[in-house]
Amino acid sequence: MSGLGFEILARSGPARRGRIATAHGQFETPAFMPVGTAGTVKAMTVEALSAAGAEVVLANTYHLMLRPGAERVARLGGLHAFMAWPGPILTDSGGFQVMSLSELRRIDERGVLFQSHLDGARHELTPERAVEIQRLLDADIAMVLDECAPWPIEERAAADSMRLSMRWAERSKAAFEPRPGRGLFGIVQGSVYPALRRESVEQLSRIGFDGYAIGGLAVGEGPERMLEIAAATAAALPDDRPRYLMGVGRPQDIVAAVGVGIDMFDCVLPTRSGRTGQAFTRHGVVNIRNARHAEDPRPLDEACPCPACARHGRAYLHHLARTGEILASVLLTWHNLTYYQGLVAELRRAIEGRDFEGFRASFEAERAAGDLAAP
Amino acid sequence: MSGLGFEILARSGPARRGRIATAHGQFETPAFMPVGTAGTVKAMTVEALSAAGAEVVLANTYHLMLRPGAERVARLGGLHAFMAWPGPILTDSGGFQVMSLSELRRIDERGVLFQSHLDGARHELTPERAVEIQRLLDADIAMVLDECAPWPIEERAAADSMRLSMRWAERSKAAFEPRPGRGLFGIVQGSVYPALRRESVEQLSRIGFDGYAIGGLAVGEGPERMLEIAAATAAALPDDRPRYLMGVGRPQDIVAAVGVGIDMFDCVLPTRSGRTGQAFTRHGVVNIRNARHAEDPRPLDEACPCPACARHGRAYLHHLARTGEILASVLLTWHNLTYYQGLVAELRRAIEGRDFEGFRASFEAERAAGDLAAP
Repeated sequence: MSGLGFEILARSGPARRGRIATAHGQFETPAFMPVGTAGTVKAMTVEALSAAGAEVVLANTYHLMLRPGAERVARLGGLHAFMAWPGPILTDSGGFQVMSLSELRRIDERGVLFQSHLDGARHELTPERAVEIQRLLDADIAMVLDECAPWPIEERAAADSMRLSMRWAERSKAAFEPRPGRGLFGIVQGSVYPALRRESVEQLSRIGFDGYAIGGLAVGEGPERMLEIAAATAAALPDDRPRYLMGVGRPQDIVAAVGVGIDMFDCVLPTRSGRTGQAFTRHGVVNIRNARHAEDPRPLDEACPCPACARHGRAYLHHLARTGEILASVLLTWHNLTYYQGLVAELRRAIEGRDFEGFRASFEAERAAGDLAAP
Repeated sequence: MSGLGFEILARSGPARRGRIATAHGQFETPAFMPVGTAGTVKAMTVEALSAAGAEVVLANTYHLMLRPGAERVARLGGLHAFMAWPGPILTDSGGFQVMSLSELRRIDERGVLFQSHLDGARHELTPERAVEIQRLLDADIAMVLDECAPWPIEERAAADSMRLSMRWAERSKAAFEPRPGRGLFGIVQGSVYPALRRESVEQLSRIGFDGYAIGGLAVGEGPERMLEIAAATAAALPDDRPRYLMGVGRPQDIVAAVGVGIDMFDCVLPTRSGRTGQAFTRHGVVNIRNARHAEDPRPLDEACPCPACARHGRAYLHHLARTGEILASVLLTWHNLTYYQGLVAELRRAIEGRDFEGFRASFEAERAAGDLAAP
């Protein structure tokens, strides 16, 4: 097999239920990818990650190129061996973090020069180097380097930025060495401008990628506009390739985006929220630090199979979070990822049953019901 | 059954291999109790704790009385239900942490007045209240309130302090309500003065306890003097009751103390060290943050069954510790507790085989060999 396998197993309106095959096994779509920034999904062992239902994880090229370094990871056998995650790994290109985390950036046609946020050392990221780093990490799915335009941005500047990203996409594709079970995704840019998004889709489709991501959203444009752009972009993308909405998002954003034909998601929300005492449930978000949970022996969600819910009451989780215990981060992250993986599993079942809209209605009804009343 | 069951199954010189039965099951001795300060052994799920081999855990009365409060824990079903640890729990009396963590202490015949290190609130701990709190927590093994004398201390002051502790021990015993499978331990004091230690042993033996702890050691007197006092005290204590050396210690201290007849230990060393990048192995302590591990693919200890060793190389653990990842704390704590539980399991087997001295020799030889050479 060269590239990635992708088959669509069922549809419900624009929503698709599929399967992606990689060198490190397959994963089901719609898929949610937990973020494993520095080669670890924060607070989770790989066993816990599997138990939570994760099939594919995302790792950040920017963090790993700075520490421990891509060449070092390669000498240690690649990222799968390094972090002991046997399943598929998608790596981003590093572009987004260069823009958001590093200092002294200089972007030109060649690439981006920046200083590490760790030690101030200068680094260069070009489309070719981003592809090389991802090959050194041994990513199953690599992403092209793109420029992440700021928000808000004028249409003319957005066009310039998108066209630079398209030239970088072409260079990324040229630099990408095909290997069995590994693929490269292009990234659609163009901010909130439909004509630019269409132009970007045309450019990428012409170059040809194993999958297509939608970038530059969830940056402040608001959920309705995001969905509008995602819907129009998804409809224009090739039907037979996976579609990935980058950095999204909240459970309701994921449900809505699956409804317009998106297959893949990543977001720090379940993991980051787990470290700040926020728990996702069918009924919405629970702030476990709130005093109303202090003597509540009931689980966060009695139907949830995670260890936080199967073993512990809210009172204990409240105590751990208030006390700043590491176990609070471990248990709430585990819970949140279990919730997110359960959500995409339910979406897959609903699409198999040709009933995406039925699922959406029950999803919204459960959220509208709200959290448990005080004990 | 009233009180605790204790049987000695084998001996090798003064070393004893026994079994203690409690309301929440039995545990084997020599036993090492991980410290679960605030109702959690830091960074460990209860599943991980069991997998590491722990059979009994210690919880701190001082921390739990302040947050979430003993009455609250009782309303939630006791500490076993609260933290979801089904096995035996020993609680300390709170005395040691009152002395080391709180402010504005006033000690008199009645007890100790102090201010919480969390919010400055005033609390009183008396022998009776310490026993009541431990009953509310539902400890299988409770400890008498004692005064932890400072180090160094003159013999006359040590005598006054020890005698106060003995009067408190008598009041603790009077306040302790016998229940099946629950026991109360007395604590021998007397600093480094043999005559005071003997007097303390006589007083406690006269009162009669389910077990006897040796307190006031590992406070700065040095390992040789500690062992000397522990040996003389153990020899004077009733043979048919468990002996517990509080707050000890390093692996070599545990081996030496088992050799003079100690049955139980607790220490923050494996857990605290796990959070600072220190790993215990058969060959000594490894500082995983050291640069020499940065590209070492070998496990910390290839014979260790813990997930840190079974799945990961030193390079990955080094990366996690340097990056400040929660997973570093999780994996190294898990490893260190696995090491400590393996150590007491080996001690038990050696005593069963009547070969404590043979074990001590191989223990020392492995440590003398030192850590792996650089790769």
